[in-house]
Amino acid sequence: MKRFKKVAILGLGHIGSSIIRAMQRAGSAEDIVGHAKSAETRAVAVDIGLVSEAFENPGEAVRGADLVVLCVPIGTCGSLAKSIKSSLSPGAILTDVGSVKAAIIRDVGPHVPKGVHFIPGHPIAGTEQSGPRSGFAELFDNRWVVLTPLPENPPEQVQRLEDFWLGLGARVERMDAVHHDMVLAMTSHLPHLIAYNAVNTASDLEAVTKSEVIKYSAGGFRDLTRIAASDPTMWRDIFLNNKEAVLDVLGRFSDELSVLQKAVRAGDGETLFDIFTKARETRRGIIAAGQDTAAPDFGRSSGHKT
Amino acid sequence: MKRFKKVAILGLGHIGSSIIRAMQRAGSAEDIVGHAKSAETRAVAVDIGLVSEAFENPGEAVRGADLVVLCVPIGTCGSLAKSIKSSLSPGAILTDVGSVKAAIIRDVGPHVPKGVHFIPGHPIAGTEQSGPRSGFAELFDNRWVVLTPLPENPPEQVQRLEDFWLGLGARVERMDAVHHDMVLAMTSHLPHLIAYNAVNTASDLEAVTKSEVIKYSAGGFRDLTRIAASDPTMWRDIFLNNKEAVLDVLGRFSDELSVLQKAVRAGDGETLFDIFTKARETRRGIIAAGQDTAAPDFGRSSGHKT
Repeated sequence: MKRFKKVAILGLGHIGSSIIRAMQRAGSAEDIVGHAKSAETRAVAVDIGLVSEAFENPGEAVRGADLVVLCVPIGTCGSLAKSIKSSLSPGAILTDVGSVKAAIIRDVGPHVPKGVHFIPGHPIAGTEQSGPRSGFAELFDNRWVVLTPLPENPPEQVQRLEDFWLGLGARVERMDAVHHDMVLAMTSHLPHLIAYNAVNTASDLEAVTKSEVIKYSAGGFRDLTRIAASDPTMWRDIFLNNKEAVLDVLGRFSDELSVLQKAVRAGDGETLFDIFTKARETRRGIIAAGQDTAAPDFGRSSGHKT
Repeated sequence: MKRFKKVAILGLGHIGSSIIRAMQRAGSAEDIVGHAKSAETRAVAVDIGLVSEAFENPGEAVRGADLVVLCVPIGTCGSLAKSIKSSLSPGAILTDVGSVKAAIIRDVGPHVPKGVHFIPGHPIAGTEQSGPRSGFAELFDNRWVVLTPLPENPPEQVQRLEDFWLGLGARVERMDAVHHDMVLAMTSHLPHLIAYNAVNTASDLEAVTKSEVIKYSAGGFRDLTRIAASDPTMWRDIFLNNKEAVLDVLGRFSDELSVLQKAVRAGDGETLFDIFTKARETRRGIIAAGQDTAAPDFGRSSGHKT
């Protein structure tokens, strides 16, 4: 892996700070600088040794950087790209970490100057934590990072970005942006929508008190809804920017749920049994594929203490 | 806690074998015997020291027992109760571990002889494991057990059963059977229905391969669907026997999901943000209440290795 001279991380939250911790572990950069809107975040980032300098002005942060990573909510990537376009160095790689790709290409693409290589990316990792103190070097270990290169990207630059992520412990896959958005709608966006919705259904139920829901959540509710603790701003932006794919999978989910509802109403045990058996087999496939473990911590502890 | 002379565990699966391991740890019984339909299960149960004897005929198992625990799928509790009714000893406590209570009272109640104390119960604990080898003594530690006593139960017998569960490490709550069934519909039955359905939605999606779902399941799908690995027979019986409460909460879940769907379609970021924020606050309440932990293992490891 060829070291970057200067990496600018724009946005010093959970993902930005984890990228920095992983870079520090790997020795991926000679210098790391950052940008954050909040003065407190900038002070913390310097104080805990994340960056050599933290800039209020993102243009100053990217000056002279050969790698720039946008680690801000999806909805602000476009305006951030616009504000740095005149400061980007020719030959620099510009990438991002957004959970949707087509919308980011639409928003960021027009602001990328000639000679700068915009290669969209998405590390599929994260916890429900936030802020510059929450980052940790192991976050990307064995996790997938999807790159959705553009036709104009030189292959050697895409390879350089891939090598960067491999150095951070991740595994890298490349795919088309539209396909990425459908895969993520199913594996991540729909699950979050469902989890948020289940929590609100429970809290709106008059017959069952909130303290009862909490008390008895070990029966399944707890696991189903862990991801409902995720950041509302980030998730609002995801749903606003991956509308078609989300509506597609959500429609299918609702249709299949109606089938289950009818089977429960009709007392149709055979259909219920068949549907549950099919689901269990698929779920077991996930364990077999090593994306999960049978251990009670889901294999998520991997050296990291929260 | 007053020791039981002879405890008969009918059904030697995950819950039955865990009760036995916890009893052995606590010294709750002088003798523990069991019943299982499968000859292999009976042989294993004796072999690994779960029981002193394992009977094919449940009537033989309960003879002389002062505590009998039904640990079989909900749908077979009625016929099992019928088959032991002439062998139960006067003064014995008969209880169960079923996830629904009104239906079990309906099915078991008519077979309970005078002088035998049928006190329905439900330990809210379990993993997706099954079989006699999967039991472990810590399963009930700090978990809730709900007793739904009947009007005819003598208070001292209910207390004795409560003390039994406390001895196994559990916390005990008492409530009305119908209320129990509504609380569980929300906190356990609906989450399982949703998890099964999400898995099947994913596996039916042509645009996304099953291997992609598996590969990228760290984005939320994995957590949402862990409980879809649960036993199909057990869950079919739960849905067949808690129909009204499940249809009630499922209807509310679907209605609220439609609101989210409309907000996504309309690009209504404000509504999405408000809904997600409300859900996150409730979810954080679960962590604060100690039913969950912020640790990556959900606090589920508690000394038990799987």
